[in-house]
Amino acid sequence: MSTQAATAAARRSKITPERETELYDAVLRLLREGGYDSVTMEGVAALTKCGKATLYRQWGTKPRLVTAALARRRCVVFGGIDTGTLAGDLREAARVAASHHERDAGLMEAVAQAYIQHPDLRAALRETVIAPEIASIDAIVARAVERGEVEAGNPAADLVAPAFLGMLRIERICEERFTDTSAMRAFVDAVLLPALRATG
Amino acid sequence: MSTQAATAAARRSKITPERETELYDAVLRLLREGGYDSVTMEGVAALTKCGKATLYRQWGTKPRLVTAALARRRCVVFGGIDTGTLAGDLREAARVAASHHERDAGLMEAVAQAYIQHPDLRAALRETVIAPEIASIDAIVARAVERGEVEAGNPAADLVAPAFLGMLRIERICEERFTDTSAMRAFVDAVLLPALRATG
Repeated sequence: MSTQAATAAARRSKITPERETELYDAVLRLLREGGYDSVTMEGVAALTKCGKATLYRQWGTKPRLVTAALARRRCVVFGGIDTGTLAGDLREAARVAASHHERDAGLMEAVAQAYIQHPDLRAALRETVIAPEIASIDAIVARAVERGEVEAGNPAADLVAPAFLGMLRIERICEERFTDTSAMRAFVDAVLLPALRATG
Repeated sequence: MSTQAATAAARRSKITPERETELYDAVLRLLREGGYDSVTMEGVAALTKCGKATLYRQWGTKPRLVTAALARRRCVVFGGIDTGTLAGDLREAARVAASHHERDAGLMEAVAQAYIQHPDLRAALRETVIAPEIASIDAIVARAVERGEVEAGNPAADLVAPAFLGMLRIERICEERFTDTSAMRAFVDAVLLPALRATG
């Protein structure tokens, strides 16, 4: 091992899990406050008193650092939902979505912005942010099929997850129509549940 | 009238409707090709051989110029649809959305980007780009209520337009799930139509 490589390995090993969490938190804070463009290696280094060289050595590029921070966050919003009924699960998802939106609207906005502006980030964002949410909603529907609440093969089953996320995205664009946080609940009750029970 | 004001009025009057169309086309071309950030007063001036001073005098700011260009475009995608039945109208909207998406994905992407990045543009974009589409879909549903196809007061009625636009927005994010252009058609048939007929 060259002296240089040994030094690099030693330095890298200095990043403890706590330190890593601190770095990721700084990335998410910058994302939340100023959007993707406001995240810079310099900014993260300054916030955490971490050497810029360490950031580059560990994560290589800004997209990789941001993706790692979002992936580590692991806050799959719809992940833990399991009330025992389809209506209960989807209503809980609507409730969680509304409170999450309020709590972390800045971060969600930054993710949406990065998604649109930086095609190189899309695959990573899909994998770390979008796919787990889709999988969680798919699981809600799959359990309802298993329980016999939804007929297997109902053509709406595959559309629930994208329709739910789409409605969530459009909600703010149509905000003059939805003056309270119950738009998602209304969507569940008036659109998704009837569609899922429409056949059979 | 001061000499200065008279000169300004004379200059302004030199912008013929044809010239205006040419300027708006240049704005939309820049938007389509490089997104909102690539639209500059300099770029539009260079493309059209128009004086930059004229652009500033006439439109004041870039957001106002972009908004005017989008508003003049007047291509309300769902505007002319009237097949005589609810299913026919919504299926036609799905078909038009798919072909429009393909044809003008670059411009739609640029509008979405501008919407997210530039809060000062949002009100204008809502009014010129989003509201007319929502109104067109609302009109489809309203006609179905008049014809008795949908019960008045069906709680899904108000949600059709946002759900449709939301699904359209999310479609590309979930594109591995929707490998053809029929996702919107499936959404109409399996989700919207059953929901609209679910009560009553």
